[in-house]
Amino acid sequence: MPTIAGVRLATAAAGIRYKGRTDVLLALFDKGTQVAGVFTKSRCPSAAVDWCRAKLKGGEARALVVNSGNANAFTGKTGKQATDLTAKIAAKAIASSPDKIFLASTGVIGEPLDATKFNGVLDAMAKQAEPDGWQEAAAAIMTTDTFAKVATATVKLGKATVRINGIAKGAGMIAPDMATMLAFVFTDAPISAAVLQSLLKTGVEDTFNAVTIDGDTSTSDTLLAFATGAAAAHGAPAIKRTSDPQLKAFAKAFQGVLADLAEQVARDGEGARKLVEIKVEGAVSKKSARRIAMSIANSPLVKTAVAGEDANWGRVVMAVGKAGEPADRDKLSIAFNGIRVATRGMRDPSYSETEVSAAMKNKTIQIKVGLGLGKGSDRVLTCDLTKEYVAINGDYRS
Amino acid sequence: MPTIAGVRLATAAAGIRYKGRTDVLLALFDKGTQVAGVFTKSRCPSAAVDWCRAKLKGGEARALVVNSGNANAFTGKTGKQATDLTAKIAAKAIASSPDKIFLASTGVIGEPLDATKFNGVLDAMAKQAEPDGWQEAAAAIMTTDTFAKVATATVKLGKATVRINGIAKGAGMIAPDMATMLAFVFTDAPISAAVLQSLLKTGVEDTFNAVTIDGDTSTSDTLLAFATGAAAAHGAPAIKRTSDPQLKAFAKAFQGVLADLAEQVARDGEGARKLVEIKVEGAVSKKSARRIAMSIANSPLVKTAVAGEDANWGRVVMAVGKAGEPADRDKLSIAFNGIRVATRGMRDPSYSETEVSAAMKNKTIQIKVGLGLGKGSDRVLTCDLTKEYVAINGDYRS
Repeated sequence: MPTIAGVRLATAAAGIRYKGRTDVLLALFDKGTQVAGVFTKSRCPSAAVDWCRAKLKGGEARALVVNSGNANAFTGKTGKQATDLTAKIAAKAIASSPDKIFLASTGVIGEPLDATKFNGVLDAMAKQAEPDGWQEAAAAIMTTDTFAKVATATVKLGKATVRINGIAKGAGMIAPDMATMLAFVFTDAPISAAVLQSLLKTGVEDTFNAVTIDGDTSTSDTLLAFATGAAAAHGAPAIKRTSDPQLKAFAKAFQGVLADLAEQVARDGEGARKLVEIKVEGAVSKKSARRIAMSIANSPLVKTAVAGEDANWGRVVMAVGKAGEPADRDKLSIAFNGIRVATRGMRDPSYSETEVSAAMKNKTIQIKVGLGLGKGSDRVLTCDLTKEYVAINGDYRS
Repeated sequence: MPTIAGVRLATAAAGIRYKGRTDVLLALFDKGTQVAGVFTKSRCPSAAVDWCRAKLKGGEARALVVNSGNANAFTGKTGKQATDLTAKIAAKAIASSPDKIFLASTGVIGEPLDATKFNGVLDAMAKQAEPDGWQEAAAAIMTTDTFAKVATATVKLGKATVRINGIAKGAGMIAPDMATMLAFVFTDAPISAAVLQSLLKTGVEDTFNAVTIDGDTSTSDTLLAFATGAAAAHGAPAIKRTSDPQLKAFAKAFQGVLADLAEQVARDGEGARKLVEIKVEGAVSKKSARRIAMSIANSPLVKTAVAGEDANWGRVVMAVGKAGEPADRDKLSIAFNGIRVATRGMRDPSYSETEVSAAMKNKTIQIKVGLGLGKGSDRVLTCDLTKEYVAINGDYRS
């Protein structure tokens, strides 16, 4: 991973929950860094989500503090006290205002987060922060992820070259509680907070919002983007309007980084052995296609069939039928990895079971559904449902 | 199980899919038997569901034919041909009209159902039909159910004693396809088709519609009720209006039979080791309480936690939060089997982990959520999510 001018990173082991690994990430930003964010739609969000939502109004960030091991969710008043104290300690360490400190937490729900553990730790980290260390940063925010998730892009903004780096942690669970998807994107491009917010809002729709592991929305999902503007020093133009034509290539690259991270999250779903792409075409609208795709992606029966390497299109029919969206049984067609198994509401008479069985052994499975009703199409990513998923989430006390 | 005057039963092995077990049920009804039904909300229903919906308009039934092993779903035109032929064969066997034959099929999706297998079989069954054999009837319609599901009630209608018998098969899967929930209720009470329909519609709301195994709606869910009216011979009054005060006790008993069957279905969910009751109180409405209860009941994380005997209330918070219904994090309270573990949006400081861990070893787990917002309450039933569920649905080809 390359560096991003204006961003410095440090990781540390604060001993929040894990032993023998890092569990805190501090990212420091140069003055004037713009920030934008999107969050979980949960009605029971974590204290850190509440904090970030409130602080986004300022549009500026000087630091990001992420801890793994404790989600600081459903912690009542102590949750708010913990965010206040964490921001205060971080602000003191870098001589800034708590209003410019952004926070994210992932891990156990319902356990008070002892923010006094950041005392001294953040201070030392601020002194050690370096432009390098992106892999280490991605590793420090992991819970049950099996690999650290990073992505990068280099793109022209005006005549200058700018960079976009991203890190994410996936929908892995942490005993004895739940998952959180966190993602952070950083760029040296001089993009205003409002434009950044617009890029995020558009960008998540077909990336992070099109991924499901088990349909269980976290209390803590957080995606923040930071633009240091450091590339202005070598001629990058300041972007203050979404209509600016110079934004186009950047927006595409930004979207690419989100898509890359989102796909890594799906691939590393708990217990997953396969990445599953659900593609729905011929729906009455994109919205309808999304709902049908999500119905398929969240179906335990479809996901266990993929785990069993079975092209079980009967279960896909079931999931289409239960979505509640317009569908005509006798117009449906279904293909697995390009092999059509059902057409016009019946088994495709020409399909070879041997061929499709071989295709189901792939690490990536595409399920394509044609509804034959209209022009709406969409795509979502998920993973298979294995016994390991149940083990990860059910076995830890036995 | 007692007999129901006006109903005779026969079972047989027609060799549709299984070896060495019965797979066809024929129930014969005396002339004038009234019928009502409710069905899956799937947009891709089975051919048998299409058939029954059309024939219900007549209001009268002379026979019910149920087969296990093949769902006759997603079978295109051959599916309709199969229902036509099955009804024709049954009608001939009992010298009635095909319009008075009701059909249900459960098993593989997408395989054509060879209805010629009923030739001769239904004829012989019609001759052998007897008022006894309810357990055998329930066994003949099973797929992966681990036990036959029957329920009965005896109640006064006017001054006469009438009976209600029910049988059901659960949300068990059948390799290599999907589940179907079928239930049939029979009574000798003289209840008109319209009143019976109204009893069903009201009755399912808090029974069969309040059960979820994995959130995957079948293409074939069917609940039919038959009222022979034979009890009129010993003085039972004919009920033609839902407002008839004589209906009250009967309606309660009828609802009781539905509730009994529905609970058995939940208890016998695939791979299930525990029956889970989700009770939501203090919601803004019953509808809102139902949605929140279903969000909890369908959450893989909640269900795997129950499988792991873990009172993981953090996941319950998550499921409340993702339901999209009004909820105030800081007013939530959660109890497992009567032990309050969270109150006012925080861990209950007084709860004993030892006590709740012991309670989680029960075969029946109640999760009670208080929202503290209004007077809406509801209850749904589900089961835990175990590795056996994944094995049943994912392993059969490996």
